Amino acid sequence: MQRPKTTIEKETFGTRQVHLPAADEVPGDCVLVRVLWVSADPAMRGWLSPATNSYVPPVKIGAAMRAHGVGRALTSAKGIPIGSLVTGQLGWRSACVMRANSLLVAPTLPTGVSSSVLLGAMGGTGLTAYFGLLRVGKPQAGEVVLVSAAAGATGGVAVQLARRVVGASRVIGIAGGPVKCAYVRDVLGAHECVDYKAEGFGKKLQAALPDGVDVYFDNVGGTVLENALRLLKKGGRVVLCGAISVYNEKERRGPRNYLALIAKRASMQGFIVTDYEKEFNAARKELAAWVQAGKITVREDVVEGLENAPNALRRLFEGRNIGKVVVRVLDQQGSENGLGYAVRSKL
Amino acid sequence: MQRPKTTIEKETFGTRQVHLPAADEVPGDCVLVRVLWVSADPAMRGWLSPATNSYVPPVKIGAAMRAHGVGRALTSAKGIPIGSLVTGQLGWRSACVMRANSLLVAPTLPTGVSSSVLLGAMGGTGLTAYFGLLRVGKPQAGEVVLVSAAAGATGGVAVQLARRVVGASRVIGIAGGPVKCAYVRDVLGAHECVDYKAEGFGKKLQAALPDGVDVYFDNVGGTVLENALRLLKKGGRVVLCGAISVYNEKERRGPRNYLALIAKRASMQGFIVTDYEKEFNAARKELAAWVQAGKITVREDVVEGLENAPNALRRLFEGRNIGKVVVRVLDQQGSENGLGYAVRSKL
Repeated sequence: MQRPKTTIEKETFGTRQVHLPAADEVPGDCVLVRVLWVSADPAMRGWLSPATNSYVPPVKIGAAMRAHGVGRALTSAKGIPIGSLVTGQLGWRSACVMRANSLLVAPTLPTGVSSSVLLGAMGGTGLTAYFGLLRVGKPQAGEVVLVSAAAGATGGVAVQLARRVVGASRVIGIAGGPVKCAYVRDVLGAHECVDYKAEGFGKKLQAALPDGVDVYFDNVGGTVLENALRLLKKGGRVVLCGAISVYNEKERRGPRNYLALIAKRASMQGFIVTDYEKEFNAARKELAAWVQAGKITVREDVVEGLENAPNALRRLFEGRNIGKVVVRVLDQQGSENGLGYAVRSKL
Repeated sequence: MQRPKTTIEKETFGTRQVHLPAADEVPGDCVLVRVLWVSADPAMRGWLSPATNSYVPPVKIGAAMRAHGVGRALTSAKGIPIGSLVTGQLGWRSACVMRANSLLVAPTLPTGVSSSVLLGAMGGTGLTAYFGLLRVGKPQAGEVVLVSAAAGATGGVAVQLARRVVGASRVIGIAGGPVKCAYVRDVLGAHECVDYKAEGFGKKLQAALPDGVDVYFDNVGGTVLENALRLLKKGGRVVLCGAISVYNEKERRGPRNYLALIAKRASMQGFIVTDYEKEFNAARKELAAWVQAGKITVREDVVEGLENAPNALRRLFEGRNIGKVVVRVLDQQGSENGLGYAVRSKL
């Protein structure tokens, strides 16, 4: 067992080469996929923990790490033409055989963006921001929206949606360090971005939100969540998207001032983006149009090579990324030689 | 300053006699009220703490303790006939002069119940259960409802509403000790009641809720809330009504497993009953009808004499009451002699 107790360690993952079937050996309802991009997301940390009360089972020891990916179909099957760009839960693998009905053929991409956008602004994180903000938080034009991890993949889209699609009267980001804060303000369009690592964070946040918060989109938990609860307006809504600050903690704690929800007649609501699966296509089209129109800026933190996927995950927990972390699967890692290459949770 | 740091102490309250105006000295828009009953409620603990982020300001040092009460109008004013039974924020006082527009003339009482029902099943606690359960939690017929402090004034009405008005498929109470649990089951009609003080509470609660919880009505917070979060169904709703287990705590903590809200796509929503003030009259009529029909049992824990009001509050925090705690203001404490008698937070 090499499940991480707190942070991801050297022993958490290993690599393995496996033989892939030749094109004519692939079952009729399956497709051989050459993987181009795989994702690294905070939620993966939960998938590495032993079975708990989670929404998906843990990744099995020895199995390829579960991950969304973008690939090219090297064979065809019903609904998947050969050569098409596809997305699905490809895993941290350079190539794989997937059931055709578990893949989606990619929609037309906005011009000038890499297909990795299908993991970010048009993929899991973009959809998470879309449904979490627009369906769960439901900010109205003129309301005040606060977003944590605002320089991250999900938070960054949430900030832009709040400012440029919803028309919130005030959009405030929270991020770590001056570089990220400048990005959230200057590129993503937040009215202000408060540095949670700087001295006097609580006071600065309060100063940035003189009238309080209508919708808080929380990606981090911990003391940042407590500060946001303190600043909720009457009837405020907290969207619980994630809690990256606590996933690595062995002893978890809850927001000490959760009773602010009573005083403020406020709510805290969790969601899982896959519940909206039937609406993904329509949402992706909207997101693509906003990317095309420049309302949503695509920024990616590209990690080169599948063998560096564990580092990609570490970057998230160390708060080193700006934008969506994606892993580029290099050409020599492909399946042309009949070999697949996988990063697995260790045997 | 004698604000309590944790539990209510001997020094928290004092008493004082004050002169009241004669009937012909009462201003025209005011009414002289002889107080019959005053309330003791968990929320009062919060009103004794220094100003925080609360929904009402703290009671001033030296002022009469804020409390709902039932009284008899000894003078008349617009809308308040002399001799009428009235309710309002009379305070822990034996008599008082109140603005007429701050009083409500009591509706017709169900037969055979004391006017103290206007503080319980037809008053603050009954209305809190009514709006908290029916408007915030919104259980549907066939859903599973869990209620903590189920032998208390608010929880007891919530249990009965869930079972006898909503038609929940399973109503489970949580209470402290076998006597309260028997009351919740046998009198209030819960399918089961789990003793939080008994060994193996978490397992017993789980056993009582094999399919999980749709709506959890929380009056207590702490580890009971954590156990309920663990057992939420997908889409579950937690109604945050109060948290009596933590009000006395100096170092508060939040529910450590609040991220269950994400995995379960669940929500936690606070409310303050006074937000529904415009609907109080209609709700009171419904509650009165349910009391009359025997759907809601009225049970009160009567404390005799205004000087014992602090003890009434202590009973709540020591979990010694079954049903609504009310304080009967004794005859000799009335205003016939032109003297009012008040229990005040100490000077």
